[in-house]
Amino acid sequence: MDTRFTGVIPPVITPFKHGEVDLDSLRRVVEFLIGSGVHGLFVGGSSGEVAYLTDSQRDAVISAVVEYASGRVPVLAGAIDTTAHRVIEQARRAEALGADAVVAACPFYALNDAAEIADHFRAIAAAISVPLLAYDVPVRLNGKKLDRDMLVTLGVEGALAGVKDSSGDDVGFRRLVAANAAAGHPLALLTGHECVVDGMLLLGGDGCVPGYGNVEPGAYVELWEAARAGRWDEARRIQDRLCAGFEIVFVPRGRSGDASGIGAFKTVMAAQGTIDANEMAFPVRALEGASREGVLAIARSQGLI
Amino acid sequence: MDTRFTGVIPPVITPFKHGEVDLDSLRRVVEFLIGSGVHGLFVGGSSGEVAYLTDSQRDAVISAVVEYASGRVPVLAGAIDTTAHRVIEQARRAEALGADAVVAACPFYALNDAAEIADHFRAIAAAISVPLLAYDVPVRLNGKKLDRDMLVTLGVEGALAGVKDSSGDDVGFRRLVAANAAAGHPLALLTGHECVVDGMLLLGGDGCVPGYGNVEPGAYVELWEAARAGRWDEARRIQDRLCAGFEIVFVPRGRSGDASGIGAFKTVMAAQGTIDANEMAFPVRALEGASREGVLAIARSQGLI
Amino acid sequence: MDTRFTGVIPPVITPFKHGEVDLDSLRRVVEFLIGSGVHGLFVGGSSGEVAYLTDSQRDAVISAVVEYASGRVPVLAGAIDTTAHRVIEQARRAEALGADAVVAACPFYALNDAAEIADHFRAIAAAISVPLLAYDVPVRLNGKKLDRDMLVTLGVEGALAGVKDSSGDDVGFRRLVAANAAAGHPLALLTGHECVVDGMLLLGGDGCVPGYGNVEPGAYVELWEAARAGRWDEARRIQDRLCAGFEIVFVPRGRSGDASGIGAFKTVMAAQGTIDANEMAFPVRALEGASREGVLAIARSQGLI
Amino acid sequence: MDTRFTGVIPPVITPFKHGEVDLDSLRRVVEFLIGSGVHGLFVGGSSGEVAYLTDSQRDAVISAVVEYASGRVPVLAGAIDTTAHRVIEQARRAEALGADAVVAACPFYALNDAAEIADHFRAIAAAISVPLLAYDVPVRLNGKKLDRDMLVTLGVEGALAGVKDSSGDDVGFRRLVAANAAAGHPLALLTGHECVVDGMLLLGGDGCVPGYGNVEPGAYVELWEAARAGRWDEARRIQDRLCAGFEIVFVPRGRSGDASGIGAFKTVMAAQGTIDANEMAFPVRALEGASREGVLAIARSQGLI
Repeated sequence: MDTRFTGVIPPVITPFKHGEVDLDSLRRVVEFLIGSGVHGLFVGGSSGEVAYLTDSQRDAVISAVVEYASGRVPVLAGAIDTTAHRVIEQARRAEALGADAVVAACPFYALNDAAEIADHFRAIAAAISVPLLAYDVPVRLNGKKLDRDMLVTLGVEGALAGVKDSSGDDVGFRRLVAANAAAGHPLALLTGHECVVDGMLLLGGDGCVPGYGNVEPGAYVELWEAARAGRWDEARRIQDRLCAGFEIVFVPRGRSGDASGIGAFKTVMAAQGTIDANEMAFPVRALEGASREGVLAIARSQGLI
Repeated sequence: MDTRFTGVIPPVITPFKHGEVDLDSLRRVVEFLIGSGVHGLFVGGSSGEVAYLTDSQRDAVISAVVEYASGRVPVLAGAIDTTAHRVIEQARRAEALGADAVVAACPFYALNDAAEIADHFRAIAAAISVPLLAYDVPVRLNGKKLDRDMLVTLGVEGALAGVKDSSGDDVGFRRLVAANAAAGHPLALLTGHECVVDGMLLLGGDGCVPGYGNVEPGAYVELWEAARAGRWDEARRIQDRLCAGFEIVFVPRGRSGDASGIGAFKTVMAAQGTIDANEMAFPVRALEGASREGVLAIARSQGLI
Repeated sequence: MDTRFTGVIPPVITPFKHGEVDLDSLRRVVEFLIGSGVHGLFVGGSSGEVAYLTDSQRDAVISAVVEYASGRVPVLAGAIDTTAHRVIEQARRAEALGADAVVAACPFYALNDAAEIADHFRAIAAAISVPLLAYDVPVRLNGKKLDRDMLVTLGVEGALAGVKDSSGDDVGFRRLVAANAAAGHPLALLTGHECVVDGMLLLGGDGCVPGYGNVEPGAYVELWEAARAGRWDEARRIQDRLCAGFEIVFVPRGRSGDASGIGAFKTVMAAQGTIDANEMAFPVRALEGASREGVLAIARSQGLI
Repeated sequence: MDTRFTGVIPPVITPFKHGEVDLDSLRRVVEFLIGSGVHGLFVGGSSGEVAYLTDSQRDAVISAVVEYASGRVPVLAGAIDTTAHRVIEQARRAEALGADAVVAACPFYALNDAAEIADHFRAIAAAISVPLLAYDVPVRLNGKKLDRDMLVTLGVEGALAGVKDSSGDDVGFRRLVAANAAAGHPLALLTGHECVVDGMLLLGGDGCVPGYGNVEPGAYVELWEAARAGRWDEARRIQDRLCAGFEIVFVPRGRSGDASGIGAFKTVMAAQGTIDANEMAFPVRALEGASREGVLAIARSQGLI
């Protein structure tokens, strides 16, 4: 297993201002995260609103984060597009811009089967020189869940270096951990769920990619250290506090999934001063009114602002 | 309603040879379709394997079809990407290459609500000079179905010129036809389901975008003419024959959705000589063995080859 | 094919008053339907709120409708329960009470495969002396759609006499019609969708089971007759008028599926005087306030009240 | 919280022989479970094939288990039917037969909203004298997930004494645990997932209802005790061993969900001698051939037989 892809690796949000990516705020986000002790940065993920960024915006974000990180922690870059040939174009640009690894999802819009999906990952891995991680996120991808045995096989082949599991299928994650261990642990297995990191580390996960880690990175690092030391009751208490803060994403009523989740993170981060504004990528409108107030009320009660 | 977007408008398949788009075969496809009397061509749709084409391949296909069509019929081009700003880049290139209209889906990978989706279409329409049609295809897009009232509102606003409905929701299509009629018929309403064109025309649809029309375009033109003349029993008989041929897509066992559907079309087209090979875009493998034989057996029994 | 199971066979709603089945109102419903010329009655279906009725209430309803119908039209009775042995108990009681046929769904709550589902239907058929029809209603049954080939096989075997298709899958219905015809037409194929009866008859359906037929049975009979005579434009006009009335089910906001659909039917029927009240089975509350007014406004504009 | 509903409470499988419930085997199952130290028994659950049992079979099972348990541990009985009035009939019979508590799911087949579902549970609770637990099992119930706030509200009201959560939504379970704690812990919160009991106890769950507990009840009791004592690494090791055994449910290929899961449990239990045969309720066929051999191979490698 490549130990660069373990620990706490937050998916970096993308700040916006007046409709453009706000690189000054992005620099502050990176400093905040690295200063809090995170072990890596994942740019161009769902929390980074990658689906909304044009190619030139994606490049600007990767390039900036690589520069800001200056080698202090590895930078993983999402290469998100519908199928392999398109993903490869994204992935090669990310590699050229300095990303230490690429994260790619299974095909979407396309309707593929298991063999085609395996070939998809193989082709991407073969086209780049940096490691490839698979991104399992059925809620965005037509319910498509990556097959456990395929992932481990690709790990053994050397095509995959890890998996970011945002499937919310904890039984599946445990089975993946067991199969990976039985195969010699080729894959770094990261949970994408910020609310169950304690349990996922207990069962043998190698790290986490918590969107809410943009708001409270230090607490995730403490949770990670408690878990590494086997202080599970402490890990659970930290996770419970994090979950109490994470309730911000359930506050907005009548808003979309992205507006509620990423919007809530940004709203607290703006109040914390990490970013200038809680602006979202078009066409998502920033949280405002009662949604914004409700988010800030929780953040205040948790001592975050 | 813009009458250019009515009648039979097949989604043109994209032939491949040795891993590359086969423009010679594509020229023959275009001639076959136009020679059969179709009223328009839709390039860059799901049947055109748009999700698998790189931007340069997409451009090559649009450019070639525009050239081959030479203004004989309108050319609609799919601009398929995750969100508005990315779609706009696709759409502008398509317009620059000579497309007569652009077809765009709702956001995907992103998690948006109704207001955000409406703004998505408005922004795309505002960024191009040619008409925009909405593409409703929940089976590829996380189950997201376009809202009837939103579509009609965007039609009245002038943002949308039509809808390609591949949702398989016939009750929804009828309700859309009724609401569109009540609003003055701003939208051209096209069904994407090749098996129920007779019924969709009976209830007031303005045309069809039949993937299977790549195989039997002339029969769809006859069906359209029978329907226009109110010869519904004849329309039904033609549709029944077309459905008997369409059974080819159910033949392949254990293959993906795209391999089965588009792969079956291509397999018959190759046997007909319209294209050189039944090759698919990577990573989909061409139909072969029993799947290919089964497809050809049906085609033979229907007199297609 | 058993011609008793063709034509217009409305799923009879179950009137309630003060928490009990209102048999007086039920008698008026039966008279209204038969007087309008329907060809059969289906009791104990989803529109009859069968899921909410205790066994003794189910028996009372079947018994009453058999008595009221007095042999003027066949009475089909739903035998709705989770698996075969439980369904058989329901089915035998229905047969003993005088039902002319039994309608059963695939197993639910249970997680079965195709072979088990076929055996389920075979066992039910073998346990009763009256014909059995299969009820395909994925929206209520975990998305489970009955397999076309299984249905036709069971028809050929004599286990099934027909299918009530409420799957909303028009391509599937057409394929079922074609396979049934090829097998000698053993099954009576009825669509459960009240909005597309014209199209489903055009493609070869044998009849319909329209929930909205409780409100406008006579129009469905006219539609049936127009279709039988090949007057498709007239059929379509009648269907369009019916759809305009059917818009009542989309009026209630923030109410459940059953409250909106069956509740809207009952609200108009109460205003028409067919039933005493628009009361629903517990725990569904009757439509009231803006929902009720909106439903009645449409009914008024359509001349139904 | 009612402490009777904490700890390890396996859902008791229902043995069959020659098509009938095998009460002799059932007695051995009960002795095996109680002898292994479990804290309660849940009869009439999904693992008990409740959906396949007629009312008289359900009664016989409840009655037998109550007799066999003889008050040594509490007996919870599933009252599984479509809606409240039908569930109440089941629940009252269970209570009369000696069940210490009733477990009921949300309505199914019916299409209800949140308010209707709350009234459903209230009505059931009001109709019985023993405590009521809610059963959250979306995979069997059309994807319907019980709302967290509703559950806690019903707990505070006294209508619900607990929840069996088989939703597989670990974030949801953690949020439920937190909300329940904030409300004074009225509900006993039990996870239904046998593979993540360690993590669910770590985050604050009150117990488990593991189907696989029919095969290895003693290990679940050890896991429970390790967790109670804060020995989380030990708990995790026990859980990992249990998961290695639980792999039996993934062995059968091409079989239904119930045949694979419950069928695998029964196959090992028969080999262990706890029950006479691995027979399933009609129409599910027992595992045989390669499926049976594969299951037994795992059981052998785990030292279970």
